Amino acid sequence: MGERMDPSVITDLMARALENRDILSIAAGFTDNSILPKQLVREAVLALTEADAPNGILQYGLNQGKLGLREEIRQWLEGFPGERGGCIGTDQLIVSNGSQQSLYLAMQTLCDPGDIVLVERPSYFVFLEMLKGLGIEAVGMPSLPDGRIDLEGTAGLFDDLKYSGKWNRVKALYLIGYFANPSSRCVPEADKVELAKLMDEKDLFVPVLEDAAYRDLYFKEPYPARSIFSLEAYDPLPKLFLGTFTKPFATGMKVGYGVCSDAHWLEKMLSTKGHHDFGTSHFSQGIIEYVLKQGLYESYLQHQRKHYSEKADMMDEALEATGIRDLGWAWDKPEGGLLMWLRGPEHIDTRIGQPFCETCIDRGVLYVPGDLSFTGNEPDNCVRLSYGALESDRLVEASRRFGEVAKTFS
Amino acid sequence: MGERMDPSVITDLMARALENRDILSIAAGFTDNSILPKQLVREAVLALTEADAPNGILQYGLNQGKLGLREEIRQWLEGFPGERGGCIGTDQLIVSNGSQQSLYLAMQTLCDPGDIVLVERPSYFVFLEMLKGLGIEAVGMPSLPDGRIDLEGTAGLFDDLKYSGKWNRVKALYLIGYFANPSSRCVPEADKVELAKLMDEKDLFVPVLEDAAYRDLYFKEPYPARSIFSLEAYDPLPKLFLGTFTKPFATGMKVGYGVCSDAHWLEKMLSTKGHHDFGTSHFSQGIIEYVLKQGLYESYLQHQRKHYSEKADMMDEALEATGIRDLGWAWDKPEGGLLMWLRGPEHIDTRIGQPFCETCIDRGVLYVPGDLSFTGNEPDNCVRLSYGALESDRLVEASRRFGEVAKTFS
Repeated sequence: MGERMDPSVITDLMARALENRDILSIAAGFTDNSILPKQLVREAVLALTEADAPNGILQYGLNQGKLGLREEIRQWLEGFPGERGGCIGTDQLIVSNGSQQSLYLAMQTLCDPGDIVLVERPSYFVFLEMLKGLGIEAVGMPSLPDGRIDLEGTAGLFDDLKYSGKWNRVKALYLIGYFANPSSRCVPEADKVELAKLMDEKDLFVPVLEDAAYRDLYFKEPYPARSIFSLEAYDPLPKLFLGTFTKPFATGMKVGYGVCSDAHWLEKMLSTKGHHDFGTSHFSQGIIEYVLKQGLYESYLQHQRKHYSEKADMMDEALEATGIRDLGWAWDKPEGGLLMWLRGPEHIDTRIGQPFCETCIDRGVLYVPGDLSFTGNEPDNCVRLSYGALESDRLVEASRRFGEVAKTFS
Repeated sequence: MGERMDPSVITDLMARALENRDILSIAAGFTDNSILPKQLVREAVLALTEADAPNGILQYGLNQGKLGLREEIRQWLEGFPGERGGCIGTDQLIVSNGSQQSLYLAMQTLCDPGDIVLVERPSYFVFLEMLKGLGIEAVGMPSLPDGRIDLEGTAGLFDDLKYSGKWNRVKALYLIGYFANPSSRCVPEADKVELAKLMDEKDLFVPVLEDAAYRDLYFKEPYPARSIFSLEAYDPLPKLFLGTFTKPFATGMKVGYGVCSDAHWLEKMLSTKGHHDFGTSHFSQGIIEYVLKQGLYESYLQHQRKHYSEKADMMDEALEATGIRDLGWAWDKPEGGLLMWLRGPEHIDTRIGQPFCETCIDRGVLYVPGDLSFTGNEPDNCVRLSYGALESDRLVEASRRFGEVAKTFS
């Protein structure tokens, strides 16, 4: 069968949550219902459905995505400080059902079963599940204790792959550049550049994917690293940069995008997209285009950034208050995104089915076990927590519950 | 590479159309902009975004689809005359990006490259392209001169597949039950039953897909054949029934669905859907749910049916007026859907690049060549015309242009 089935981890966790109605989930990466842009969407739809507005907004659109929206996205991306002007063309953009679909199309068109994709440690676990489904092997590049990519270790990994005969099965490299899922870390520009140099040195000429799903959700300043599209070191490589409006704007509208530097690869993705669904909802694209064009996205983001920054503080303070940092738990307060990544003492085992996890469920709090974000040889003492969805009181209570369990086990 | 690339026929035709601004397209299966449900969508969005309406409509939804919408679809399907009550459960329904995505998921989960899917002659050419992309072979079941499935010939085909060693590569059978794309024909209930009996007789135990994208768009009466979900003859077989709101309602919102009788197969499709995009736009689903729940869909359909019935008449009359029927062209006036299927005299060659096609483009009319809807050994003298998109004057003019070219070549 074309796709191998794996029980979805998310589905499993959600089922557990539903068994206990009092349970508080800081597991799923949902956004906050209370600030979803209902009024902005209403305003956009009212404008798009005025009596004399063209009905075409409800017609099929282009498989590649609405041209007006692609132009808005192009301008948006070029507006980040330091990005090279003119480095992105609307013809390089594909609009998809979330950036997830662009990721899927990328993997479908680049890889056959048995191929290898290089990922960070940790990496986005839904992506890792997708790779499993497609029969693709994820191989983690080593990381330093502070979470950055271990470039020396990665050089060693490249050599190992060469000597073990797996080198020509490596088909892509996947980076999460900004406020990563799950670690909330960003990749410093210097590290991106060094990685490209290492690839060049080792003759690893494969496409690089940079996932920037949370880039717009910085709290104070845009993270000062240019995207791989603007870095000369990446000029020789095929590139796909991925962004989305699901996290920073209207989650449930499922509009994301990819920017692809390689015309042949993009053509293959578009052909496959044509087979999937021949185009993402033209109506939803029209709504997002309107919001961008009217300058409403930026002002909405300012509100979002403040909101999530405050929620990150709340979770951080609630965790600190339990005193678990003194017991060996470590985490950085995020500077953007929706997620917090905690590492417990070595003996802690956060995996599903283990006593730590069961106790959390019993005490009414749900998290994402960290081992899911690794690809073998995983540390079992990490967790991903999200401050995205819960309202203040419940967020603080969930963090407290988690901290109390962590204290008991530490 | 996972998906093989083929130049998309549609893209190609569209590009040709754009070269000539005066060209009238009766090729693409678009709906009519003038009656797309702008006001209904506006009404639904106003209700869904009222100040005190829950913001959750803009949040992620379930991967399988919004439960409320699935319940509405279930009731809608069971409302067709003769359908067995209780034969469809909401847990059997998957909501997808058009029914196209359900088709894709079905093929991804059932077939490996090299496998075979049985189709009608003619069949939906976008589906045939999708199969090619996935490396799956489509094998056409013979048809009778009147367009019905040739059951005797199909029995022979089954035997041929057995003797040639291809039998165990057959993984599914794809039927278009109602106002088919491209032929506008329906499959009589007796033929459906006989086909199931033949499958039983020949020990062909493979999933059956019934595509009903145009079922709601009948002109006078629902076509009096129950779906494969209600026919006892299909009880032993895994089944997927496919429907959509793109053709009969809001085209650009891209909401369709599948109903799957086999829990294991559905689970695999859901898992793969989770990898594609983890759920179709929750917002678009909310809009369609509202329209169904308020009973607005049925009244809107009555308007649509009248509209398209009149447009079918216009095209039919404009073609008749050119006198090409006397020159050997044959067609049936459709009783639903958006399409007309014409068969020319034997010597006519409607393929892309042939003089007939080039002349049509020169004279400013675009059609879909019939050979694209066949799977080898194709007749080259057929065309698919659509009366969906163009407004009356242009529709009549396009039909006249086509007829004039047909006359010249006949």
